[in-house]
Amino acid sequence: MAGFPKSMQRLVSSLERLPGVGPKSATRLAFYFMTSPVSFSNELTSAIVELKQKLKFCKICFHITEDEVCEICNDSMRNSVQICVVERPVDVLSLESTGGYKGLYHVLGGALNPLEHIGPEDLKIYELIERVGELAGKSEILLEIILATNPTMEGEATALYIKKKLEQFEGRIKLSRIGSGLPMGGDIEFADTATIAQAMNGRREW
Amino acid sequence: MAGFPKSMQRLVSSLERLPGVGPKSATRLAFYFMTSPVSFSNELTSAIVELKQKLKFCKICFHITEDEVCEICNDSMRNSVQICVVERPVDVLSLESTGGYKGLYHVLGGALNPLEHIGPEDLKIYELIERVGELAGKSEILLEIILATNPTMEGEATALYIKKKLEQFEGRIKLSRIGSGLPMGGDIEFADTATIAQAMNGRREW
Repeated sequence: MAGFPKSMQRLVSSLERLPGVGPKSATRLAFYFMTSPVSFSNELTSAIVELKQKLKFCKICFHITEDEVCEICNDSMRNSVQICVVERPVDVLSLESTGGYKGLYHVLGGALNPLEHIGPEDLKIYELIERVGELAGKSEILLEIILATNPTMEGEATALYIKKKLEQFEGRIKLSRIGSGLPMGGDIEFADTATIAQAMNGRREW
Repeated sequence: MAGFPKSMQRLVSSLERLPGVGPKSATRLAFYFMTSPVSFSNELTSAIVELKQKLKFCKICFHITEDEVCEICNDSMRNSVQICVVERPVDVLSLESTGGYKGLYHVLGGALNPLEHIGPEDLKIYELIERVGELAGKSEILLEIILATNPTMEGEATALYIKKKLEQFEGRIKLSRIGSGLPMGGDIEFADTATIAQAMNGRREW
């Protein structure tokens, strides 16, 4: 049986390692590379190389940046006594797109997940505690930490773990958890029971 | 609002041009590139470059190959008076994987599709007619052409178009269309009406 030429097989097996790309879509992508103009593959490969060279994590908050310290941490107009703790850099983008939050961030790099062997040492939790310790000692205004990990099992576990670790700063920080419940435009009829229960527990006086 | 760093934005918009990759998965892929070892992105980019450099279409049948003429056309053990006409190089692979066909191929590069502005001149139809003309003149044995385009609207239209074009060789070639009907392991109950009708029309004596 004749298979694909070697260069095709090589690219397909490389593409298969990408998340969400199976053998079928890897083959489809490889054919796309073959038939698309060379300018496209040049642009893509140079974009990958540039990303690997330039992009790094901010030294302070671990958001992605091309500098030592990210745009947000560098912005003196932002509220420096508010730190919003999120799982991933994309979460920063989502929160920023609302335009409502003017504080700083701390990107953990994921959530605790024993099944996938992701423990506290794999996340930037130690760095958060240290950062909070420094700021809580320095500032005279109460430091506010908003735990904005996802309302999933892993995100909740991570928030709880951090909450416990931050207990040592009691009285010097104000801790909160991002609100959860029915999404705006959502429908009670179609919401899952966990969301409804959460929305009931999280009811606010009105 | 602070967005992603430039190098990230650049890679995301490059990845978005890939088939089946939307903004969300492009971002996911870009993050994967960022966090995966540099050896992986090096391997992938060099595989893309190698593919663009080495891979071409066979001069005879337009299957993909790293040489001027593909492995199959070059194989003197294969039946040279049988040509199976398919839409894409992946179809060759599927047919080869059965191990039952020992003739040659002709890869059209797609199917006629007026809605996507794919006409006969965009496919290797002219090249097929020319090839058949040469072989039909030379060989003393009847040349068999098997039209194995997909049993879709586009594939059927393409097969019909080619059938008409091949009428000029009547008596010198034997034309057939790949069988269609219920797939093996299929269930009449769940088959669509078009497939059932096709299976009834295509019934064989037994």
